[in-house]
Parts: sequence; structure tokens; C-alpha cells
Amino acid sequence: MTTLSPPLVEPIRVGVALSDRSYDILIGRGLIASAGAEIARRLPRVRAAIVSDRNVGGLYSADLSRVLNAAGIGSVAVEVEPGEGTKNFANLEHVVRAVLAARLERGDVVIALGGGVVGDLAGFAAAIVRRGMRFVQLPTSLLAQVDSSVGGKTGINTPEGKNLVGAFHQPSLVIADTGVLDTLPPRELRAGYAEVAKYGLIDDPGFFAWLEANWRGVFSGGPEREHAVATSCRAKARVVAADEHETGERALLNLGHTFGHALEAATGYSQRLVHGEGVAIGMVLAHRFSARMNLASPDDAARVTAHLAGVGLPTELADIEGTLPDADGLMALIAQDKKVSRGTLTFILTHGVGKAFIAKDVPPAAVRDFLADSL
Amino acid sequence: MTTLSPPLVEPIRVGVALSDRSYDILIGRGLIASAGAEIARRLPRVRAAIVSDRNVGGLYSADLSRVLNAAGIGSVAVEVEPGEGTKNFANLEHVVRAVLAARLERGDVVIALGGGVVGDLAGFAAAIVRRGMRFVQLPTSLLAQVDSSVGGKTGINTPEGKNLVGAFHQPSLVIADTGVLDTLPPRELRAGYAEVAKYGLIDDPGFFAWLEANWRGVFSGGPEREHAVATSCRAKARVVAADEHETGERALLNLGHTFGHALEAATGYSQRLVHGEGVAIGMVLAHRFSARMNLASPDDAARVTAHLAGVGLPTELADIEGTLPDADGLMALIAQDKKVSRGTLTFILTHGVGKAFIAKDVPPAAVRDFLADSL
Ligand SMILES: NC(=O)c1ccc[n+]([C@@H]2O[C@H](COP(=O)([O-])OP(=O)(O)OC[C@H]3O[C@@H](n4cnc5c(N)ncnc54)[C@H](O)[C@@H]3O)[C@@H](O)[C@H]2O)c1
Ligand SMILES: NC(=O)c1ccc[n+]([C@@H]2O[C@H](COP(=O)([O-])OP(=O)(O)OC[C@H]3O[C@@H](n4cnc5c(N)ncnc54)[C@H](O)[C@@H]3O)[C@@H](O)[C@H]2O)c1
Ligand SMILES: [Zn+2]
Ligand SMILES: [Zn+2]
Repeated sequence: MTTLSPPLVEPIRVGVALSDRSYDILIGRGLIASAGAEIARRLPRVRAAIVSDRNVGGLYSADLSRVLNAAGIGSVAVEVEPGEGTKNFANLEHVVRAVLAARLERGDVVIALGGGVVGDLAGFAAAIVRRGMRFVQLPTSLLAQVDSSVGGKTGINTPEGKNLVGAFHQPSLVIADTGVLDTLPPRELRAGYAEVAKYGLIDDPGFFAWLEANWRGVFSGGPEREHAVATSCRAKARVVAADEHETGERALLNLGHTFGHALEAATGYSQRLVHGEGVAIGMVLAHRFSARMNLASPDDAARVTAHLAGVGLPTELADIEGTLPDADGLMALIAQDKKVSRGTLTFILTHGVGKAFIAKDVPPAAVRDFLADSL
Repeated sequence: MTTLSPPLVEPIRVGVALSDRSYDILIGRGLIASAGAEIARRLPRVRAAIVSDRNVGGLYSADLSRVLNAAGIGSVAVEVEPGEGTKNFANLEHVVRAVLAARLERGDVVIALGGGVVGDLAGFAAAIVRRGMRFVQLPTSLLAQVDSSVGGKTGINTPEGKNLVGAFHQPSLVIADTGVLDTLPPRELRAGYAEVAKYGLIDDPGFFAWLEANWRGVFSGGPEREHAVATSCRAKARVVAADEHETGERALLNLGHTFGHALEAATGYSQRLVHGEGVAIGMVLAHRFSARMNLASPDDAARVTAHLAGVGLPTELADIEGTLPDADGLMALIAQDKKVSRGTLTFILTHGVGKAFIAKDVPPAAVRDFLADSL
């Protein structure tokens, strides 16, 4: 348990514009202390289920329940094991039944207190209990604060693949307490940072330059952290508002993810490589491949590599411990992840820092040769 | 297996108006034979998973797969056990994983071939695989043709209650082949008929009078059957279009269902009383209770009783075999089903045949006394 002090400054407010399902993202240090009031203001007279994993629940669940209580919101706690393996049907059923056993109604709220695993699982449960309950995200990992808690994608994994089962279910509110990132393991903080950098690389070269100059403050927990989270949320909110159900432009968010997913699969989704680390290497590869295709300058690839390596992220295939599949093996994993449509691949490529674009006609042979040379 | 002859007459088309999710209900004898063409016309180049139960699958699945094939639609078959017990998490996972194992994509289609159990389960699976696949209903019970296949409510049961977990997921098309009702067990046909009569009782006295004169044709499979199914679908489509997510007027569809659900619960959801039989008794009780509250004439209650009993449906509590709970026991079951808000019950009551309305302030004591006198 931690001691709660109310936030010293006003939270930053980022709006997600989705007509009648619009909602706020509040960002600030110490915000858990005002979570009760913020929820009660928007959702009067609700009751709540707090879903968390053992790590995060142990640190923050009792505090949250207390501030909810103080705001007149009774709650029950539902705990799951930490880790990606938790996102499965058995835990979905467990959370759903716990919410039903607490006799929560459609207007009541499921609160996800945790990283992306808890957010995806609890959000999916909220989507299907009584065909849709209210849902509030209280993301506690950097990745969850800048990525998974915004946009309404929820879901679980099955042996057939990751995130293949789920629902679009927008939260009513996202509260990103940047102070809780102080207890996040450093490796997870770095992994989340890869997604922060991604927003700069997609279409905001100014933000990438700002990160190059200010990343230390993001890591140490200065006011730069709030700025980085808010800028990331604004970027994601813009894309989500333009393409809620991922039929077009939202694909840009996958910069670095095609290579990244293949590497995660190649390492068995193990601690050898966590998601954000795969994304970091994937973004470097996307820039290098773009340079090789004469779409971008090699200087941009070098700049991206320097920054990501500078914060302590892996940037080379050789940074991954143990052996990797060969180029053909990696291509097979890429083909499994992406639909190969009429013999070409869709990739997010770039014309340089902040100039990513969707390339629909990438020849697989070029990717294969590039990987062979990179291994 | 049956031999397929194409329909002799044009199907009746009923539209469900839901802006960009509008769809057609096609109604006619022999329509399975044209299911491939109708689906291919609306969803070009899809692949399909046919979900069915053992009873219905044994009769119609091979035929359907053949006509799909003829229209260029490859399919896999997924079979579940017949019966309400099938609507659970384990079967949801089974169907979802079978669809994923067949490598169907978001644009591909899940086809529910069966009664309401298969429709609710397969529709829910379609709603959550890849966060929403296409979905086609091929309802094979009368209840499914006139009620469960229209409106987009999908879901499963848990030990906490029936239909508490699910999604709103509209089909792309509903094909009601009235010929397949010839193989439906007569008791199930009668049960579905209770829901047909319900549409007359809600707001269409002319239809109820037509049913009194023409019910034999509905049961024997004359053209009256198509008319009855189409009129019912039109009525449901109207309500659904006005209130897709069941926040208001859609509650009228619950005429007879508050009493009915309590009786189903009282008989343990067993073969002692199937759903439509509970609804039949419930509708009679709703009319009698309305008369007792001086809202309607007792003649209307008598008329409803006479018609439902005439087609062979139970209409009295005494028609249920075995013992029932006493009035207090039934009231407890009613309170479990409905939210008792500030001490009063919301019920669907009536001013007479075709004049149902939502009554929000029914005193529980009046219901209890009425039940005590009815037992
Ligand atoms: N829905 C989306 O749009 C979306 C987007 C990206 C990723 N995701 C999903 O997010 C998941 C990854 O999220 P993640 O990286 O947050 O993983 P995670 O939820 O597993 O959290 C990482 C680890 O950090 C711990 N932790 C979290 N917050 C902590 C804190 N404040 N203090 C101490 N420990 C803390 C967790 O217990 C866990 O052990 C994946 O399942 C991925 O599929 C979803
Ligand atoms: N989604 C909705 O809006 C909605 C509305 C009403 C009811 N429901 C649900 O519908 C379910 C009840 O549906 P149901 O009454 O169709 O039950 P069902 O699906 O169990 O079918 C009844 C029986 O008839 C058999 N059968 C079906 N069609 C047949 C045919 N043509 N020939 C031979 N046998 C056939 C089935 O195998 C089953 O044994 C319940 O689970 C209920 O909750 C849903
Ligand atoms: Zn990512
Ligand atoms: Zn019914």
C-alpha cells in the first residue's frame, strides 16, 4: 500500500472524440487519489468492480477502493495473475462471473487497474456482461497509459493467436496516474517508451526531437513524463477518432509491429523479448528497410537507432539472446501475422522521421533479402 | 438429409432499418436452396462456418454446405449438442476456436443454422472473433424465425443467470425457410407460436384476429405460415429499429415474459415447461392481472386464453405438471428476474388485445395476491 497525496497540479485533459461515446483521458501524478471524485462526477450512483493483477492490486487496489468509497462508490475487487497468459477464456469467464456475482447492473462500472493485460481482459468482460457495462481504465504501465487504454480495443488470446477474440468497447474515462509508473519495473518502462517514440516516428517529428532532448525526464518522473503521455494519448486519440474500427488509417499505429510481432513469435512471447522491445527493433528495421528501398535516408534510420539504443532499448536482432529463425523462418512468421494479399505484403514504411505511410505492395522477396542481410 | 427443391414463389422480404447495419429477412418455403446465392450476392467472396446442433445439423447441414459450395462459398461445419445447456462459456470457446482454426477473416461469415440456442451462441461467437465477423441467421425453429434471429441480441448463460453475457451483433441477412419447420417437434412449434400470438397481443389486434381464424394453416404449413412469420418479423423489426439497444420501447416484447421467466425458473428450465409455454401462461396471467387492476376487460383475458388453449398451449398454472412454489416463492423469482426499483415492479400490462403498455409502478403486493388466487 502507498500513501495517497492528492495531485499538486491540475491533470492534463485529452478528449477522445467519438460522438456519443466521447470520453476524457486525465493525465497527472497522483491522480488515483481523485479517481473516486472523477468517476462519481461522470457516473453518478454506480457501483464498481476493480479488476487488477496481483502485482498492481497489491500496490494500489486497497487505495483505490478507499477513494471510491469516499466518493460513495462501493466496490468489489477481482484479482488475476500477472502476465500475458492471463488473457484467456478461463480468466474472461472468471472476471465475468465475479462481476455478475457482485450483482452489478448495466449502468455500473468495471475498472481496469493495471497494465495492458488487465485492461484488455477487464474491458472485454465489461463489453459482454449484460451486453455492455460501463468501463473505466486506470492504466498503470507506460504502455497501457499511452496505447492500450485508449481506443476501445479489448480482447484475449487463444492458442490460434494473440488478440484474435474481443470487442470494441470504449471506456467512459481513462485516468493515467503517472506517479504509479515509479513502481513499474524499469524494463517495462523502457518497453512502453518504444510506443511513445512511435508516435513521434509516425507523424510528429517535433515530438521525436523533443524526446531526444527530454527522455531522461520521462524516465525519472519529471513533468516531462506527463507531457510525453499526453502527447502520445493525443496522437492515438486522433487516429482512433478518425478510424474507430480499424479499417484504414489506424494501421499506421502498427509501425514497427510487423517485424516486432514476428520477433515476439520467434521468441515464444517469452521474457527473451517483451512487446515494446520487439517494437523498438521493428521500428529500426522498418526505417532501415525504407532506406534500402530508397524511400528514406539512411541517416533517419541511424538517428532512430541511436535514440532507442540510448534509452536502453534493443535495436538489433543480435540484441536478442539465444538463436533466431533464419530469414525464411521469420518470413513465415510474418506471413502468419499479416494476410498476404495477392502475393504482396502491407507494411508501415517511412519517408523519414515523422513520415510513416501504409505501403500495400511490398514484395516479400525484398523483405526476405533484407532480413537475411540483417541477421 | 432432405432433397432440396428451389422455392416455388418469391420469398417475402422484410427489411430491418438500422442505418449502415440494415439487413433483409427473407421468408419462404424451400429457401435453404437459394441460401448460397442470397449470401453470395450480399457478401461476395466470403468463406463460411456453419454452426448447428446435432438435430438440425443432421437434417440440413450437408444440404446447406452443398448450396453454398454451388455459389462459390467454401464452408466448415461446427456442431454443438442440442439444448439450452449448450449456451455456455465452454461452447462459446469451442465455436470461436473452430472458426479461428478454419482461418476465417473478419469479412468472412458465421452462419447459424438452428433454433435460438444455436443463433444466440453462434451470433455471440461471430461478435467476438476478430472483434466482429459477419453473421447470417438461418433460423430453423418457429421461435427463432419470429423472435431470436431478428434484433441482434446474442449471448450465453452462466450459473448467475440466463442471457446475462453477450453482445449486440446484427446479422447481415436472415433466411427463414418455413419448410424446415415441418421437421420441428410439434411441442416446439406450439411454443414458438406463443411468440407469434404475442405480436398480435402487443399492438396488432387485427393480426390476433387473423390468427384466431387461420392458425391451422400456420401449423400445417400452408401459406398462412409465411404470412404469420413475416408479420411477426415486421413487428419485431419495427421495435428493434426504434430501440436497438433495449433502453425503452423494446421492453414491450417482454409481454408475458415476467411471469413466464419466473415459471421457467420454478420448473428448473426443464422439459416440464419450455420457454414459449411459459410465455403462453404468462400472457394469460398478464391479461388477467390487467383485468383485475381494472385496466382491461376480463373478456379479453378469456379470449386470449381460449385461443392459446385452442392451439394446444398451456394457459393455466395447473397445466404445469408437478408442484410449483407458492405465491411468495414465485414473487422471489420475479424479483430475481426484474430489478425492483424503489419498491415497485415494471411489468408489461394491457388495456386489452393489441393494447399492451409498459407499467412502471406495479405494486408487488397486488401481484402476489393475484398469484395466490391463481395457484
Ligand atoms: N487494446 C489495445 O489497443 C492494446 C494496445 C497495445 C497492447 N495491448 C496489450 O497490452 C498488453 C501488454 O500490456 P503491458 O505491457 O502493460 O503488460 P502487463 O499488463 O503484463 O504489465 C507488465 C507488467 O508490469 C506490471 N505492472 C503494471 N503496472 C505496474 C505498476 N504501476 N507497478 C508495478 N508493476 C506494474 C504487471 O503486473 C506486469 O507484470 C498485451 O497483452 C497487448 O496485447 C493492447
Ligand atoms: N436473441 C434473442 O433475441 C432471443 C429471443 C428469444 C429467445 N432467445 C433464445 O432462444 C433460445 C430458444 O430457442 P428455440 O426455442 O429455438 O430452442 P432450440 O434452439 O433449443 O431449439 C429447440 C429444439 O428444436 C430442435 N430444432 C430446431 N429446429 C429444428 C428443425 N427445423 N427440425 C428439427 N428439430 C429442430 C433443436 O435441435 C432443439 O432440440 C433460448 O436460449 C432463448 O434464450 C433469444
Ligand atoms: Zn504495440
Ligand atoms: Zn420469448
